[in-house]
Amino acid sequence: MVTEHNDTIQRCVQKCHGVPKVEDRETCASGYSGPVPATRVNTSQRLQRLRQHLRNNSIDAYIISSEDAHASEYVSDYDARREYISGFSGSAGTAVVTADKAALWTDGRYFLQADEQLDCNWILMKAGQPNVPTTYEWLEKELSNGQAIGASSYNNPIGKLISKGQWLPEIQELLDAGIQFRPIDNDLVDAIWTTGRPAIPAGPVEIHPISFAGKNWSEKVGFVRNHLSAANVTALVVTGLDETAWLFNLRGADIPYNPFFISYAIVEMDRVRLYLRDHSTKLSSQDLQTHLNTNADGSCTGKQGNCVEVKNYNSMKADVAALAMQSSTRKIWISHSCNYAIYNSIDRTKAYQKSSPIALMKAVKNSVERQGMKNSHIRDAVALISFMQRLEKEVKEGKPWTEVSAAMELKKYREKQDYMKGLSFPSISGFGSNGAIIHYKPSNVTDRTITTEGMYLLDSGGQYLDGTTDVTRTFHFGTPTDFEKEAYTLVLMGAIDLALLKWPAGLYGRDLDAVTRAPLWKAGLIYNHGTGHGIGAYLSVHEGPGRISLGYRETTYESKLYDGMFFSDEPGYYEDGKFGVRLETIVEIVYVSTKYQYKNTKFLGFNPITLVPFEPHLINVQMMSAEQISWLNAYHKKVMDIVGKRLKDEGLTDAYKWVEARVKPYEMPTFPSSPATTVTCSVFVVMVTSVLTLFQCSM
Amino acid sequence: MVTEHNDTIQRCVQKCHGVPKVEDRETCASGYSGPVPATRVNTSQRLQRLRQHLRNNSIDAYIISSEDAHASEYVSDYDARREYISGFSGSAGTAVVTADKAALWTDGRYFLQADEQLDCNWILMKAGQPNVPTTYEWLEKELSNGQAIGASSYNNPIGKLISKGQWLPEIQELLDAGIQFRPIDNDLVDAIWTTGRPAIPAGPVEIHPISFAGKNWSEKVGFVRNHLSAANVTALVVTGLDETAWLFNLRGADIPYNPFFISYAIVEMDRVRLYLRDHSTKLSSQDLQTHLNTNADGSCTGKQGNCVEVKNYNSMKADVAALAMQSSTRKIWISHSCNYAIYNSIDRTKAYQKSSPIALMKAVKNSVERQGMKNSHIRDAVALISFMQRLEKEVKEGKPWTEVSAAMELKKYREKQDYMKGLSFPSISGFGSNGAIIHYKPSNVTDRTITTEGMYLLDSGGQYLDGTTDVTRTFHFGTPTDFEKEAYTLVLMGAIDLALLKWPAGLYGRDLDAVTRAPLWKAGLIYNHGTGHGIGAYLSVHEGPGRISLGYRETTYESKLYDGMFFSDEPGYYEDGKFGVRLETIVEIVYVSTKYQYKNTKFLGFNPITLVPFEPHLINVQMMSAEQISWLNAYHKKVMDIVGKRLKDEGLTDAYKWVEARVKPYEMPTFPSSPATTVTCSVFVVMVTSVLTLFQCSM
Repeated sequence: MVTEHNDTIQRCVQKCHGVPKVEDRETCASGYSGPVPATRVNTSQRLQRLRQHLRNNSIDAYIISSEDAHASEYVSDYDARREYISGFSGSAGTAVVTADKAALWTDGRYFLQADEQLDCNWILMKAGQPNVPTTYEWLEKELSNGQAIGASSYNNPIGKLISKGQWLPEIQELLDAGIQFRPIDNDLVDAIWTTGRPAIPAGPVEIHPISFAGKNWSEKVGFVRNHLSAANVTALVVTGLDETAWLFNLRGADIPYNPFFISYAIVEMDRVRLYLRDHSTKLSSQDLQTHLNTNADGSCTGKQGNCVEVKNYNSMKADVAALAMQSSTRKIWISHSCNYAIYNSIDRTKAYQKSSPIALMKAVKNSVERQGMKNSHIRDAVALISFMQRLEKEVKEGKPWTEVSAAMELKKYREKQDYMKGLSFPSISGFGSNGAIIHYKPSNVTDRTITTEGMYLLDSGGQYLDGTTDVTRTFHFGTPTDFEKEAYTLVLMGAIDLALLKWPAGLYGRDLDAVTRAPLWKAGLIYNHGTGHGIGAYLSVHEGPGRISLGYRETTYESKLYDGMFFSDEPGYYEDGKFGVRLETIVEIVYVSTKYQYKNTKFLGFNPITLVPFEPHLINVQMMSAEQISWLNAYHKKVMDIVGKRLKDEGLTDAYKWVEARVKPYEMPTFPSSPATTVTCSVFVVMVTSVLTLFQCSM
Repeated sequence: MVTEHNDTIQRCVQKCHGVPKVEDRETCASGYSGPVPATRVNTSQRLQRLRQHLRNNSIDAYIISSEDAHASEYVSDYDARREYISGFSGSAGTAVVTADKAALWTDGRYFLQADEQLDCNWILMKAGQPNVPTTYEWLEKELSNGQAIGASSYNNPIGKLISKGQWLPEIQELLDAGIQFRPIDNDLVDAIWTTGRPAIPAGPVEIHPISFAGKNWSEKVGFVRNHLSAANVTALVVTGLDETAWLFNLRGADIPYNPFFISYAIVEMDRVRLYLRDHSTKLSSQDLQTHLNTNADGSCTGKQGNCVEVKNYNSMKADVAALAMQSSTRKIWISHSCNYAIYNSIDRTKAYQKSSPIALMKAVKNSVERQGMKNSHIRDAVALISFMQRLEKEVKEGKPWTEVSAAMELKKYREKQDYMKGLSFPSISGFGSNGAIIHYKPSNVTDRTITTEGMYLLDSGGQYLDGTTDVTRTFHFGTPTDFEKEAYTLVLMGAIDLALLKWPAGLYGRDLDAVTRAPLWKAGLIYNHGTGHGIGAYLSVHEGPGRISLGYRETTYESKLYDGMFFSDEPGYYEDGKFGVRLETIVEIVYVSTKYQYKNTKFLGFNPITLVPFEPHLINVQMMSAEQISWLNAYHKKVMDIVGKRLKDEGLTDAYKWVEARVKPYEMPTFPSSPATTVTCSVFVVMVTSVLTLFQCSM
């Protein structure tokens, strides 16, 4: 599943006359009397109530971010404040409400979805497009000297507000213009979301066995302490839910699609504290006590070796503040994903603001995790292939499959696999024009029947105890148009060109991205999302700190590429209103051998671990180079050798045949420039054309 | 000619025991008794005298940069302080002298050259290589609390010292460690360089006609004023010599290889001041008075319209200081290439530090300049091809050509061309192992005979009134080895892949670079320099603010790529001690048409304007893709159509034949995957093999 493409933003302001008139949102235009999408949530009442709270708090504009207190990409239903106020359910977006306007910014993956879901109270801001202001540019135009912007201090990570102890330049610019910026602890959406709100998540935690994790938590804490020593800081504040899950070899179920539990941690050289919701109940598990080497009351009294103190989630902020106050405390390591409330509880001079060291440790998988990732992808391929064989057959028979029923049924195929713990994200099951909505999530009101008359894009993945998967393939069960084939082939060529690349160790993913986009660019086509995201091992489907994407965020947030990282390789093409193509394969970064080795330079490359065949009848092989065809043949052979064999062993004969039909090797182009060959064939043709005009030998 | 590759620097310190023992410098190792390169300058006396001045000034380490007061890449012989003190003559490098050590940092282009030229007083620091400290890291280790670092305030551009009014973090780190940093106006090398020093350059200025410049200076000053208005600043301080030359449509001869004259300028909304050495003599020219609309005394009294006040070079600093003192002055625009002395004459609160707006205006050529660049490259190709035909013929005949004699003779061929004003840089004429020295400048002591037994790399260019050229081709006049052919072909494939690329407008050069390197990387080979540099129109051969290179300098210094910019496309490969390959073609950025045009996205691409054929017998076409072969054929056709025709028209028959022999189109590979063809040929073979075993039809 794709991540945002960080296009350089054209810093020009588009003036929106009146409230909701924005290009492409014709249903909101004055005088419009046609149908309104059933996907839209009526937010009038909610906005009216929120604006009352704005007035009560003397706030003139209120920012509602997507994040929870842990900067999570997916949030629990309880924390879905931005979706509640706007109706927009995508994973990324920022809403701003003023006394008379409401605007929502989102990125290229979500433009179509946001347009479908936002009602006419909302201005849709297509971030990164020409003439679209950034949130702060818009706020500076909308507000004047003396007015105030509010935002929840818990639900805003400091990376969005602060850099090196200073407000970000865009916020500083507002302050310079006399506009106040006021992070507040009591969220105003919480104040109005009183009925029908889901419960606070506080589910159980599970121990993640060493047979999957590869390293025990005590060893991982030791690695963190090495970083504390090297940086000469007293403590690391851990706020990311994936980080606490990875660090303590624990998993939970508080967040949809992510096996996380709501938590914080503080790691010092001689002390480790873990903060959990409903911690007493969790501690009643003897297994957890043993795993963490903790007493039943969460204390470490009398414990030998590393012990984790388990404490109440709500006591975290006070503990951090107290630690910062201690004279023996040098500095406290706070990452950019720490929320502003925790950060603000520390004296500025004590804050050591830097990316969490856990991010890179977690991204570079150990050998047990690497094998688990591969194993989980084989089982995942078995599920996907088995389902796709059935779906294709039944669609061709005219059975009434829809986007929603297909996604639901595919989930059942995954659930039959060992170690399955749920989906890793909402399946993107898009037929025809819905395939062009990059992060499309089918629902009852948008659901389309899957037929032989269009392209079908299926982007899905599972959480398994040994790994997280994420795979996209695009299909056509009838006869594709030439343009559909061309687009598919260009996307495939880009995906292969990235997979083929080798590079000297030490580069960033951004350095490689253009290689993937080049085949589409040459045809005048682009895709508005990143080429590759990191992926966790039974953790987040989108995992930092590496990425494969053009664009210039702070380099301090991005890591170089290292052996043992896993990324998606997923170029795409989207023809609005018609179809989408995306081909996503998870690849492992490995050291590769090269014919030569310049001054012992180490070279890295990609090993594909997603093993699902591509669609021969969507490939125009004449567009491809010999190198690309050779890769494709080798990949398909690997699919057959590993997943084909597994299907056969499991007696899944129909699925085996479905794969077999797709992996026939393509013949390679020949080079006539070898003089012998050229002459031979030319002479040959000259010699025999008079006799055998029926045949031709084209070179 | 290549520019530096900004590798990410491994920040580990290599401890150098004793003075000059550095890896690869075996002639400096203790106990060594073998030959010492004749290229080495004995710097013992100079260092001894400089150290006396260090002691007199209570300075513990002195930094000697390459730059003059104008941050020039090439400096006048008078300003070659770094070369004088170290013996190293490369265009880039930083020397540091302490009480008992002397160290020189340079980049990958110059590692071999520096090793040849530095005597054993010097530690060679290979910047960017693992375990090599940066200058400031080394200084921090070498010095202690209370000691002082000195540097010339005139010969250090502030971009190397200051960012946003603050010392750069690496300098701040020294200050935090109690080490002083003291820019001083009176350079200490000047103090010791008393005998044998070349004269201060103060040559004449020439008017650059509008027929070549395309726009008059008054219009250009208007563009600068638009930037002053937009930024709400009072004045622009112009310190770059290419900027004054471009702005006033003037050229000079104070700097080798660059048509520049030593100068500063100040542009305000209602006033323009130009500072020249020996300004009274220059003003005696009536033409110059008319051109600048200036009185004979340099004043503007009584002048209508835009007038340039011409003043004494030495009064610039005081004028800037006075301007900054005026209460009506808001801010003064200072670019990162302004020297520290000028910057320091302004109150910090008045400095507006940003890239000069002239840099981008100058890089985006107007239509007259674009045509001039193309015309000059055609004449330059005529000269190079005519000479190369003769050189190849005579080398094969056994005539005694050497690197030096070839470079000198080629200069004469260029000098026969219209509008020729000299070379644009020292020709890099490297045979065999000398070709592996990236910025090799042949001299009497290194000169090698050119034979049929090795590769010959020739990188050269001219200054013409209508454009600046820079071209590299690599030759072999005998039988190349398979590896030489393979390396040449990989470099060519990279050069072609960049030339073939199309990309959506809005990207930086760094986004494209990997495309060029990929063919070499896949073979395990790399080159340690940038892929492309900007080039001026009768200005610098290396011109900012765009570049095509991996690496992460401050993005504020780098520009996006725009229609009308010109860059080199010059990948290479260098096998130390054996040979070098570089293929450099100047390309113009143009809007390109694409088969599709996604949402009216504008696409950019490259139009090659260097028109010199490649070497067929160094190309292994079987390694190339159909797309690459197709580009090569089209390029060679263009060479023939334009330069071939010119050679014919000029009666240069031998040169014409030399080109003709090189531009024969390669046959394209064929794709057997079209089922009809495949079957046809297979059946054909089966049918006839029994009869005709003599021939084969390979597919």
